[in-house]
Amino acid sequence: MRKQSSTMRPNPTLANTAEYAMVGRAQEVGMEKARYLEETYTVRFYEVDTQRRVTVPTICNYLQEMADNHAFILGFAVDQVLPKGLTWVLSRLHLRMKTYPCWRETLRIATWPSEVRKLFAFRDYKLLNAQKEEIGHATSDWLLLDLNTMKPILIPDSIQQNRATEHGRVFVAPTIKLPELDRVEHEKIFQVRQSDLDINQHVNNVSYIEWALETAPEEVRQTHQLTELQVVFRAAGQYGDEVVSQSRLLEEGPHKAYLHRLQRKGDGKKMTDVKSIWAPTGITT
Amino acid sequence: MRKQSSTMRPNPTLANTAEYAMVGRAQEVGMEKARYLEETYTVRFYEVDTQRRVTVPTICNYLQEMADNHAFILGFAVDQVLPKGLTWVLSRLHLRMKTYPCWRETLRIATWPSEVRKLFAFRDYKLLNAQKEEIGHATSDWLLLDLNTMKPILIPDSIQQNRATEHGRVFVAPTIKLPELDRVEHEKIFQVRQSDLDINQHVNNVSYIEWALETAPEEVRQTHQLTELQVVFRAAGQYGDEVVSQSRLLEEGPHKAYLHRLQRKGDGKKMTDVKSIWAPTGITT
Repeated sequence: MRKQSSTMRPNPTLANTAEYAMVGRAQEVGMEKARYLEETYTVRFYEVDTQRRVTVPTICNYLQEMADNHAFILGFAVDQVLPKGLTWVLSRLHLRMKTYPCWRETLRIATWPSEVRKLFAFRDYKLLNAQKEEIGHATSDWLLLDLNTMKPILIPDSIQQNRATEHGRVFVAPTIKLPELDRVEHEKIFQVRQSDLDINQHVNNVSYIEWALETAPEEVRQTHQLTELQVVFRAAGQYGDEVVSQSRLLEEGPHKAYLHRLQRKGDGKKMTDVKSIWAPTGITT
Repeated sequence: MRKQSSTMRPNPTLANTAEYAMVGRAQEVGMEKARYLEETYTVRFYEVDTQRRVTVPTICNYLQEMADNHAFILGFAVDQVLPKGLTWVLSRLHLRMKTYPCWRETLRIATWPSEVRKLFAFRDYKLLNAQKEEIGHATSDWLLLDLNTMKPILIPDSIQQNRATEHGRVFVAPTIKLPELDRVEHEKIFQVRQSDLDINQHVNNVSYIEWALETAPEEVRQTHQLTELQVVFRAAGQYGDEVVSQSRLLEEGPHKAYLHRLQRKGDGKKMTDVKSIWAPTGITT
């Protein structure tokens, strides 16, 4: 679980540009339409792997970017809830991919707030290729944290009423439960860099995913592609932290499943649990 | 100097989408107009620092992305020269910034092939904010490498004729010369990660810049902003490399200048030289 500091400063120049444009958009199209957002990303040179496919961390960056853009349109982005003493934290992420767009190709992503359950607000995604075929889907589970108590609050009605339930849920059983890592087969240590930090000086969620996936064996990463990713975020890292990324093979077969754990080296605090499933390249699930 | 491997594989899916669209564009607008490219980038959540300003490595990623997009339109992108046994390497980068766009704001970048001098092809850039005010400019110096000899060749006429000389050069003295780092005041060691690698399994140019800037003291990075960056790329890093990033204060004053050097830890091979100049935040140059 990641917290955001209460020292975020308002951005005086923002009012002139993107903010009004986006809020204007919600008013213009009407709230019902505004509850469903589509954006197109063109895969850049620095966002692909050696097979020229967009990387999984890049896709996770797009998903996070869209969550913020959409919350902003709907009026409850992280900088919009901050004056109320609240902040959003990403608790879980679940992604399934059939194929990946390549360098210079486009990825169209649709997102909507899909459900609210007590402390959790769920956001679902569909990912489409340039031919508008669905190539993946994802769900993200968010908590709204009271910055005074640092505890999650019940999702308020004002946010609940922005659900776009007509678009349904992309996973039948959306809540991730991961077993404990009981045995370590692969380990790597990562030093937190400046570029890993987000706006609040915490490690960006996507860095944990990157560090977890790097402990999948090299030969698996070269011959397979990730088809499913389950992530549970537990604690936030900071600059100067050393993070131990460990994993083991969980299920063998044509599809290989790995279980990953990220811990802070200093005090052993568990930061993130991950399960990754890999299929031989070229075989879709 | 960075090389690209000769093992790049053609992308069979590309022909259907971006490639034809872009080449089509050059034919449509005519070659003269096509020699000048403008693109707009909206600054994403994960591209900003704690002051919500776009980071310098992100800007360098945009510049590199535009170099590729533009070369692709003009017919000599890295994957287009590869069948001729050639590849582009970025040799030097020079960037000057007055102010930085913030989270959700836009950055408009114009670029053109500005000059050819024997082995070097130069590409210049202007950076504009949402109000179309110039907030920065940059130049990048490229070599065209023969993959058989791994030596640069004279820039051929077919590329020379795509210069857009009518837009001039953004720096009066564009060639960077940096002194040797004679004394080490700051040092950090970086392990090359998977996410540092480009399409050819070499460390992305932007990672070196990120590692260099991280050795500017924390208090300088918090109270100053980078106004000028000069980079000379010398050798490419690979996965598994440990890179030593060192620096010292070069010039003291209201503007602080730092000299940086990146070396491979194993054999001491020099990878990149950098000079960074920092002005107190809020004071433009």
